[in-house]
Amino acid sequence: MEKDLAFVKEITSKKNNFSQWYVDVVRKAELADYTTIKGCMVIRPYGYGLWENMQQGLDKRIKKTGHKNAYFPLFIPENLLKKEAEHVEGFAPEVAWVTQGGNQKLDEKMAVRPTSEAIICSLYSKWIKSYRDLPLLINQWANIVRWEKTTRLFLRTTEFLWQEGHTVHKTEEDAQEETLKILFEVYRDYIENDLAIPVVVGKKTVKERFAGALNTYTLEALMSDGKVLQAGTSHNLGQNFAKAFDIKYLDEDQTEKYAWQTSWGTTTRLVGAIVMVHGDDRGLKLPPKVAPVQLVIVPITFDKSKKEVLDKAYKLCIMLGKEFRVEVDARDEYKPGWKFNEWEMRGVPLRLEIGPRDMAKEQVVLVRRDTGEKIIVKEEELAETVNSLLTEIQNNLFNQAKKFLQENIREVSDYSEFKKIIEEKKGLIRTHWCGNRDCEDKVKEETKASIRCIPFEENKIPGKCIYCGKDASTLVYFARAY
Amino acid sequence: MEKDLAFVKEITSKKNNFSQWYVDVVRKAELADYTTIKGCMVIRPYGYGLWENMQQGLDKRIKKTGHKNAYFPLFIPENLLKKEAEHVEGFAPEVAWVTQGGNQKLDEKMAVRPTSEAIICSLYSKWIKSYRDLPLLINQWANIVRWEKTTRLFLRTTEFLWQEGHTVHKTEEDAQEETLKILFEVYRDYIENDLAIPVVVGKKTVKERFAGALNTYTLEALMSDGKVLQAGTSHNLGQNFAKAFDIKYLDEDQTEKYAWQTSWGTTTRLVGAIVMVHGDDRGLKLPPKVAPVQLVIVPITFDKSKKEVLDKAYKLCIMLGKEFRVEVDARDEYKPGWKFNEWEMRGVPLRLEIGPRDMAKEQVVLVRRDTGEKIIVKEEELAETVNSLLTEIQNNLFNQAKKFLQENIREVSDYSEFKKIIEEKKGLIRTHWCGNRDCEDKVKEETKASIRCIPFEENKIPGKCIYCGKDASTLVYFARAY
Repeated sequence: MEKDLAFVKEITSKKNNFSQWYVDVVRKAELADYTTIKGCMVIRPYGYGLWENMQQGLDKRIKKTGHKNAYFPLFIPENLLKKEAEHVEGFAPEVAWVTQGGNQKLDEKMAVRPTSEAIICSLYSKWIKSYRDLPLLINQWANIVRWEKTTRLFLRTTEFLWQEGHTVHKTEEDAQEETLKILFEVYRDYIENDLAIPVVVGKKTVKERFAGALNTYTLEALMSDGKVLQAGTSHNLGQNFAKAFDIKYLDEDQTEKYAWQTSWGTTTRLVGAIVMVHGDDRGLKLPPKVAPVQLVIVPITFDKSKKEVLDKAYKLCIMLGKEFRVEVDARDEYKPGWKFNEWEMRGVPLRLEIGPRDMAKEQVVLVRRDTGEKIIVKEEELAETVNSLLTEIQNNLFNQAKKFLQENIREVSDYSEFKKIIEEKKGLIRTHWCGNRDCEDKVKEETKASIRCIPFEENKIPGKCIYCGKDASTLVYFARAY
Repeated sequence: MEKDLAFVKEITSKKNNFSQWYVDVVRKAELADYTTIKGCMVIRPYGYGLWENMQQGLDKRIKKTGHKNAYFPLFIPENLLKKEAEHVEGFAPEVAWVTQGGNQKLDEKMAVRPTSEAIICSLYSKWIKSYRDLPLLINQWANIVRWEKTTRLFLRTTEFLWQEGHTVHKTEEDAQEETLKILFEVYRDYIENDLAIPVVVGKKTVKERFAGALNTYTLEALMSDGKVLQAGTSHNLGQNFAKAFDIKYLDEDQTEKYAWQTSWGTTTRLVGAIVMVHGDDRGLKLPPKVAPVQLVIVPITFDKSKKEVLDKAYKLCIMLGKEFRVEVDARDEYKPGWKFNEWEMRGVPLRLEIGPRDMAKEQVVLVRRDTGEKIIVKEEELAETVNSLLTEIQNNLFNQAKKFLQENIREVSDYSEFKKIIEEKKGLIRTHWCGNRDCEDKVKEETKASIRCIPFEENKIPGKCIYCGKDASTLVYFARAY
C-alpha cells in the first residue's frame, strides 16, 4: 500500500501552497510540460485531448450562431499593426518580431500575431462592398504569441492557443447584439455547461478594456484559492477599426457607411481554470463533458483468472465505448491501488473495477471521482447507470463551484473591511465606484484587487465609492486576478 | 441569360493557361485569397470548411491507428535546430527568424518552426525512460513557416497548415512498420477514399528525401495538367535524431538503447490538389466526402408562389440536413440560372431545384456537378437518392482520376522519347535508373523532370538506366512536379 500514496505525496497540498499545487497537478497529470523555450509550454496528449473536447463544444456553439471558421496569416507587418493607434500602443510592448527570412534581413519587420484584428481588418476592407455582404461572421482557431515577462503553465504563456471571432455589421445595434450574444449564448453557455464553471459577467472599465475597443464584456470565474480568472472577453469595437482600415459598405440607400465590428476570444487558459476550480489534493477533477477519458476500467486480476477478467474488461470497454470515452488500464507493472490513485489524479470522472468475484455476480463496481462514492451495478444496467452518473457528476461539479462562488461574493461598503477581506479571504467584492480612474488605480495599488467588471445592473442601486466615498452610481466587482 | 455565363467568362480556360485557371478557381470560389504579407494567404471560410472536413477524415484515421494529438511550441531556438546536422542544413535557408521580443533583442534567435523534429525530440528525450514508454505515438496539427521565394495559393506558401506525426519505437522494424502503416493505412486510404485522388507510392531517392531521414516514402498524385504533386510523406528517421537529441530507453534486458523514430506529414497543399485533379472550366468539383456543402437547394420562385416554394425549400433543408451538409440559396438579388453557375463553380456535388410545378407533382430536380445529369426524384425517395448519388459522385471522381492517371503512366526506355513525352504530354514515366546521383541531376536539368519515387517492386525487373544506359536494377517514376 505504500506505493498507493505516491501521487498524493508528489502533489503539494492546496492549502500549503496553491501555486505549487497547481504546477504539480498540471505536470503530474501530464496536461502540459515546460520546454527550454522561455515561456512556451508543450500541451501533452492528455491536456490536448481535453482541449480538443473543449474546442468541439465551443466550436459547435460558434457555428450554431452562424459563424464560419477561416484562417488568417500568422504574421502582421509593422505598418498594419500601427494603423489603429490604441491597438498598437496596447500590444507593441509584447510582440515577438520576425526580422529575418532565410538569410535575408527583412525590409519591414513582422509581428507574430498578438491578436489578429489588424490583418483581418485589412482583408475585410477588401471583401466588404455592399450591405449584402453583412453581417460577416468569421472565427479563427489559432496560435497567438505575446512576449510575457512572468509565465505560468496555461495561465500565461508566451504562445497560447485560442479562438478569435471577428464580425462586421451594418449598425451599432447589430454589433452590440452580437457582442452580447457571444457573451451569453456562446461563452457563458459553454463555460458553465461544458466546463462546469460558473461565471460573473459584466463590462470592463476603460482601463481594463481591449486596446482599440469601444467596450469590452467579460466572464470572470472564481478559482478555488479565491483569485479570479478572466475566462473570456467579447468586444464591441465600434467603428474604430473600420475607420483605421477603411471598412465601408454601400448601404441600401446608396450611401457609403463605415461598418461596425466585434471581436471575441477564449484561450487555453481555460484548461488552467478547470484545474483550479475543480481540482483537489488528490489531483484533477475533470467535468465529464470534456474529460478525455470519462471512465477507466481497472481489472482486478489474480494469476488464475487473469485472462477471463481482462477479456471481460475489454468487452465492457467496447460496449461502453459506443457511448462514452473509455479506457482499460491493463498494465501489468502496477497494482490496482496504484492505478486508482493515478486515474484519480488525472481526474477521470468514473472508475470501473472488475474482478473475478464481480464477474461471478455479473456486476461491476463504479467509483465516482467527485464524491468517492462506490456503486455496485448489475451489468445489464451499466450503460444507463454510467450515463446518469456522468450527468450527476457534471452537475455536482457545477453546483459545488456555484456554491463556492456565491459564498465568496461579498457586499462591502467600507474600505478597511474591503482590504481585510481581500487580504484574508479574497473572493469577489461587490461594491460601488465613482467612475474615477484614480480611485481604480489606488485600490489596485493598495490591495492588488482590480475591477473585474461592471455588472449589467450597474446603475440600479446607488451608493458611495469604496475609495473616495463620493456618490457613486456604478456597481462593480473587485478581486485579485490571475 | 447573359449573366449566367459570367463565371465561366471570369475563369480562364484550363487549356489556355492552367496556372491562371487554378488561381481564378481558387479565388473565385473563395477558397483563399492573397494578403499583403508576401507569400502568405488567407484561407477563406469556404476553403477552411473544406480543410476542416479533410482534417476530420484524416484525424479519425490517425487516432484509429493509436496516435494522440499534442501541441508543441512554435519557436525553436537556433541551437536546437542545429543539433541534427543534415536537418539544419536542409531547413536553415528557409527559416523565418524571431530576433526581438517586445523591445528587447533576444540573446539567441528563434526559428518559427519549419518542421518540429528538433523541438519535439528535445522533449522526447526527457519523457522517454523505459521500454514501457514506447511506442510513443503523437501527432500535431499546426502552422508551419518556410521562407519561399516563389509562392502559389495552397501549393507553396510561406505559412501553411499541416499535421505532423512524430513517433518513437523500440526497434528498427517497429519504426519501419509505422512508416509504412502511415503511408498505406492512413495517408493512401485518406487521399484515395476521401479526396478521390489516386496516388502512386514509393520511396524517395537520397536527393529527394527529408533532411535527416534514413528513408522517405511518398504519395504522388497526378494533376490534370500532367504535372505531379507530392501529396504526403512518411519518414523513417532511423536513429539520427535519437542520437542527436539523446533519446534513449532502458530496455527489458536492462541495457540503454537509442530509440528509432518516424515522422510524417500532409498539408493544406492537398486543397490545391483537389482543385487541380477534379476541377474543370466551370470551376471546382468537390468530392462529396469533404465538400463543405454537399447539396444546395435553389428555389425557383415566382411572385405568386414564392412563400410556398421557400417554405418547402427550408423544410427539405431541415430534412436532408440531418444526414448531409445542405444549404438553401434564397438570395433575392440573383436569378436561378446565375445561382446554378455559382454553385457549380464552387464545386457543390448536387443541386436541388424546386419550383411550383415540382411541388404540385411532389418531386424535385437533382443535378449532378460531375456529369451534369438531371434526375427527377419523388420526395419520398429523396434522402435515399441523395445518399446514393453522393456515393456515386465520390466514386466517379475517383475513377475518372484513376483512369487519367493510368493513361498517363508511360513505360519508356529511350531518353529522346522520354524528353518528348515529358515536354508534350507530361504525366509519369516509369523507367530505370542506375542509382547514380549524376544521372538523376542531369535528367532534372535537361527535362525538369525529377524522380518522384522508387516503387516497392523496384528490384524485380532489370533494365538500362534512362540516362547513362548502364545496367540498372532500380525502377523509378519520373515527372515534372509542383
